[in-house]
Amino acid sequence: MKPFMDKEFLLNTPTASKLFHEFAEGMPIVDYHCHVSPKEIYEDVRFENITQAWLKGDHYKWRLMRSNGVEEKYITGDATDREKFQKFAEALPRAIGNPMYHWCHLELQRYFGYEGILNGETAEEVWNLTCEKFKEADMSVRGLIKQSKVAFIGTTDDPVDSLEWHRLIKEEGKLSATVAPSFRPDKALNIDKAGWKEYIATLSDVAGIKIDGIESLKAALKSRIEFFNEMGCRASDHGLDRMIFAKADEKEIDKIIKAGLKGKPVSADDAEKLKTCLLLFCAKEYNRLGWVMQLHYNCMRNPNSTMFNKLGPDSGFDCIGPNNDSIKLAKVMDTLYADNALPRTIIYSLDGSDNAFIDTLIGSFQGDDINGKIQHGSAWWFYDTLNGMRDQLKSLASLSILGNFVGMLTDSRSFLSYTRHEYFRRILCQLIGEWVEGGEYPCDEAQLKEIVEGICCKNALKYFGLEENK
Amino acid sequence: MKPFMDKEFLLNTPTASKLFHEFAEGMPIVDYHCHVSPKEIYEDVRFENITQAWLKGDHYKWRLMRSNGVEEKYITGDATDREKFQKFAEALPRAIGNPMYHWCHLELQRYFGYEGILNGETAEEVWNLTCEKFKEADMSVRGLIKQSKVAFIGTTDDPVDSLEWHRLIKEEGKLSATVAPSFRPDKALNIDKAGWKEYIATLSDVAGIKIDGIESLKAALKSRIEFFNEMGCRASDHGLDRMIFAKADEKEIDKIIKAGLKGKPVSADDAEKLKTCLLLFCAKEYNRLGWVMQLHYNCMRNPNSTMFNKLGPDSGFDCIGPNNDSIKLAKVMDTLYADNALPRTIIYSLDGSDNAFIDTLIGSFQGDDINGKIQHGSAWWFYDTLNGMRDQLKSLASLSILGNFVGMLTDSRSFLSYTRHEYFRRILCQLIGEWVEGGEYPCDEAQLKEIVEGICCKNALKYFGLEENK
Amino acid sequence: MKPFMDKEFLLNTPTASKLFHEFAEGMPIVDYHCHVSPKEIYEDVRFENITQAWLKGDHYKWRLMRSNGVEEKYITGDATDREKFQKFAEALPRAIGNPMYHWCHLELQRYFGYEGILNGETAEEVWNLTCEKFKEADMSVRGLIKQSKVAFIGTTDDPVDSLEWHRLIKEEGKLSATVAPSFRPDKALNIDKAGWKEYIATLSDVAGIKIDGIESLKAALKSRIEFFNEMGCRASDHGLDRMIFAKADEKEIDKIIKAGLKGKPVSADDAEKLKTCLLLFCAKEYNRLGWVMQLHYNCMRNPNSTMFNKLGPDSGFDCIGPNNDSIKLAKVMDTLYADNALPRTIIYSLDGSDNAFIDTLIGSFQGDDINGKIQHGSAWWFYDTLNGMRDQLKSLASLSILGNFVGMLTDSRSFLSYTRHEYFRRILCQLIGEWVEGGEYPCDEAQLKEIVEGICCKNALKYFGLEENK
Repeated sequence: MKPFMDKEFLLNTPTASKLFHEFAEGMPIVDYHCHVSPKEIYEDVRFENITQAWLKGDHYKWRLMRSNGVEEKYITGDATDREKFQKFAEALPRAIGNPMYHWCHLELQRYFGYEGILNGETAEEVWNLTCEKFKEADMSVRGLIKQSKVAFIGTTDDPVDSLEWHRLIKEEGKLSATVAPSFRPDKALNIDKAGWKEYIATLSDVAGIKIDGIESLKAALKSRIEFFNEMGCRASDHGLDRMIFAKADEKEIDKIIKAGLKGKPVSADDAEKLKTCLLLFCAKEYNRLGWVMQLHYNCMRNPNSTMFNKLGPDSGFDCIGPNNDSIKLAKVMDTLYADNALPRTIIYSLDGSDNAFIDTLIGSFQGDDINGKIQHGSAWWFYDTLNGMRDQLKSLASLSILGNFVGMLTDSRSFLSYTRHEYFRRILCQLIGEWVEGGEYPCDEAQLKEIVEGICCKNALKYFGLEENK
Repeated sequence: MKPFMDKEFLLNTPTASKLFHEFAEGMPIVDYHCHVSPKEIYEDVRFENITQAWLKGDHYKWRLMRSNGVEEKYITGDATDREKFQKFAEALPRAIGNPMYHWCHLELQRYFGYEGILNGETAEEVWNLTCEKFKEADMSVRGLIKQSKVAFIGTTDDPVDSLEWHRLIKEEGKLSATVAPSFRPDKALNIDKAGWKEYIATLSDVAGIKIDGIESLKAALKSRIEFFNEMGCRASDHGLDRMIFAKADEKEIDKIIKAGLKGKPVSADDAEKLKTCLLLFCAKEYNRLGWVMQLHYNCMRNPNSTMFNKLGPDSGFDCIGPNNDSIKLAKVMDTLYADNALPRTIIYSLDGSDNAFIDTLIGSFQGDDINGKIQHGSAWWFYDTLNGMRDQLKSLASLSILGNFVGMLTDSRSFLSYTRHEYFRRILCQLIGEWVEGGEYPCDEAQLKEIVEGICCKNALKYFGLEENK
Repeated sequence: MKPFMDKEFLLNTPTASKLFHEFAEGMPIVDYHCHVSPKEIYEDVRFENITQAWLKGDHYKWRLMRSNGVEEKYITGDATDREKFQKFAEALPRAIGNPMYHWCHLELQRYFGYEGILNGETAEEVWNLTCEKFKEADMSVRGLIKQSKVAFIGTTDDPVDSLEWHRLIKEEGKLSATVAPSFRPDKALNIDKAGWKEYIATLSDVAGIKIDGIESLKAALKSRIEFFNEMGCRASDHGLDRMIFAKADEKEIDKIIKAGLKGKPVSADDAEKLKTCLLLFCAKEYNRLGWVMQLHYNCMRNPNSTMFNKLGPDSGFDCIGPNNDSIKLAKVMDTLYADNALPRTIIYSLDGSDNAFIDTLIGSFQGDDINGKIQHGSAWWFYDTLNGMRDQLKSLASLSILGNFVGMLTDSRSFLSYTRHEYFRRILCQLIGEWVEGGEYPCDEAQLKEIVEGICCKNALKYFGLEENK
């Protein structure tokens, strides 16, 4: 029996162990897509206790607690931090086979030196230990970033954001990692969601361009893209509930925008036309500037309208949203390719059944400016599990070139979750170890080193144009 | 090499073996969803031979024989019982990797003490041995229930059923297990299937309520739900070819019912409206009474119309029916949740591709009256296989809390199939054993005992409100 | 650690090794579906170098190179053969976990006696060795067929093909294998694709029947089917982007054909009606003649229109095309079954998510003229991988009778790819070995021999009516 989560965790062959400890473990982290706050980085925030770090905003953990029948009072309600932590600690041991079990213990081991098991009985001990530990010097946000060997952080930012905190971080020049914004214009595209009209008014103000139709909307977005580019942005991100593709001429789009600006209801078809138009426009801009385009789709947002009305978005009520829109994704890619305007692109579906489709689609749109120009993104959100990551890696390897993969990102709101890169790296080395030990790939150390270091760090540096961050 | 199906069958680690033999094996069986006949229980029926037990009504076995090119004469036709058994025994060894191979040998081992291999050559020996064995005292239906340590049997019953046999069993009070009906009102909902009008006439008679519109149809269903409740019913079941959700006001529903009662054709859209209305109505009643609602969907019924016309439904010609209706299931759940009327619910899809979607959807609708209020049901029908059950368990564990799972049910028509609980328990212990031995979960015996006993029995007792049956 | 791809490659248990070396390895190859050229067979063509053999027409390898950022010049362009090989050799080691890695090394080992590793550094050595080797006597096309122990080759042929090369091969009577055409009438069905009208004109000429409507189109197809049958054809193949089923009466079909012949645009609905009509017509003819019908579907053709315009079809730009059309496939089967006209049928979907659906659907339409009349075809194209083949085998075993499976086909354009049968056989023996060694199936040598030899060769001989080829 392997000991529980020791230093050989998930490394089930000598080759896996060697690949991880000699090549993967020491690589810097390129966290090219996450949701941490640049303000908290600049201010070097410090948490008082583990509930603030773990349970203040992590909807994964809230969901787990709800699945254990915990009252909302102890989740998003007014119970004390200590009480909330107790409820979480009691739920966790029942979540056998859940990545949350591993994430929590990895974080307790790496950042707090706790080698025990978290459960209802040990909660008090863990609470006290973590409260003490948070007082230590290297446990502030900047300390966590440094001790985690993070080289690059790509935050997620709205086009109307002033990027003030990014500017301050850059000007100060003291952070061990490079922090760059990512451009996420979902609110500008979502004409079918509440608040679009108001958002466009803000965008007008920020861009200094009166938006009254498609031309001015494009101009405003372009001006913000230019601004983000000046601020070091290397990537964009689009979160699409489902994939879109509906072509219309600019006159029709203009009418749709004007209707939306008057507060008139916009049909689903018209909304899809506007979104398609803007996605294609933005993609061309990204390509012009050498940015990476990220497309996230097949997520069902807020299926529980009651809890959405109570707690708002991102509270742990979303779910996987399977949709049979493969042809639309192909059309988006084809249209951009035909215009010679397809940027480096990473595609993520929240539906794991799309793995093989995506792995073959990307092979139809590659380019010769870089190896692996079009990527299938790492297993995302609900799939960011041991099985989900293994499935994504195996499918990508079978149908494309695994050696060109840009690897892991945390997609996280927490500065403690850099251990997910470790989790990914262990899984990667486990899988490659199985192939090598099983006689399916040669035990060629130099080649394996190149592949492992590439996927863990170097491919992403090259892909996002960050090679000076090495 | 492990011996063929000995007492360590599927238990591939010491931990798996320990968990199974010390905790899982001895647990009583809570078979909360099956199709056995309460009449056969009351009358304590006894089979004369293995063909009567295995091949009289088991469409899984018929399908297997057809896949081996066996003539219908030897399946549902007029061949002798001995001839039919011979054809089945000849087909079985070719079904390597099929759960039927395991189910048959588990039944031969547990109920008949036969440790050999069934094939064309041993068929005579097995036939003779089983004929003798069926004469023994504990091989009647009640004997099989007792020796299988069954604590609870949830049958499947039509609203118009008198539940006479359930009453007799209860009055007699001698059975070692509790038997309760389950409410399955499919025929009342299926206005688009032949015989609906006639069925509604019967329902009118049985309920003593003249059904002429939506109000009276609801009243009739409600009166039957009340009656089932008095008879000890703890659960309902809805078998939906595909998921439904189409809202309409009661006036429109009333018109649809009146049209159906006049024998007029009802469109697919109108049928969906009626079904949605009745499903939501019934769900509220289930919730009021503390029942569990079971939803089974994505089954393609009777794709072979020729054989359907010859042999009728449930003859082994159904298949998996993938449909992309995830949003409809979400809407059903959302509507009930918003009305504070969502009962404890178990969702089963016959399409394994739905696993991850369901495992995330249930997390969006949990409640605090019990841990694991909304459940993803055990791998169903065609997925009730070694791989199917492992996939369901792994997906559920990754995306929800496995420790709260209510576990296995037979869904069977046979009193010999209680060994499927053993099959499930071995697979469960195999999987948990892999996690523990691989260092992915602590070897904490008390915690593992709680989880294993919970999933094998105790969670279901609590979930169905049967704790006195412990 | 197992040595890299030695004679025990993929054989991870003693049982797997025994089954492969004693039963599987020596079986003749029945390659019932491929795309090799009968002309090249008759002319006994000889390649000059490995680029001609590997990179002249293999879109799998082109796709791999593009995924590695290789310029088109080195793929389909005017670079030298040696340069192209270099680029391929440099890409290959990065494709860890890709079946291409195994296919290439299997071919180098079996046909060229090369036991090393192909990469950028060894490319020169491999180039020289293979150039020399191609001069040897048994390295011509006929030599390769003979040394690969191929018993049967089913090519893929257009209805208008004269089958001249098939005739010459047969008349000469010297080839070690039987070569037969397969009837693939896609161009006759594809009224919605460019060139249909011109194709129908050619078909008119070849059949000697003026095609001006449905009656004459059927007559022309029937005459070509009869001709193919005389030439030894045993199977047909239909490549459908997605499954079709739309019924219409013959009058309506007649109008659609007449419109198409006038060059008028044909709607997607009308095209589906024509295709359905012709597919059902052809199927009845296949059934009458005892042919096997093959249905390939869920392929997205040419999503990259730019590259399609440059390079044409089959250049490595297709991808998996998921579509939720299960009900249509069921309707095709049901209609033919009802008419007592369902031929032996092999169903292949390019979307692996369809595995379980297909494995249950086939069980609804079996017949008693042969065991396993309706088959789920071997993992196809992008799924023709270690995982893809294991998944298909496991799903088929779980839901049908694996022992009746007709097994592997190359689907290939290359005479070197017969090693894919070896790959398949190793995977099959690996899987069965796991079951036997795990105690899930008895270690009954005679029974295992029958199953393995059946799946590797004998089932296909029987299924295609080729038993004299044994």
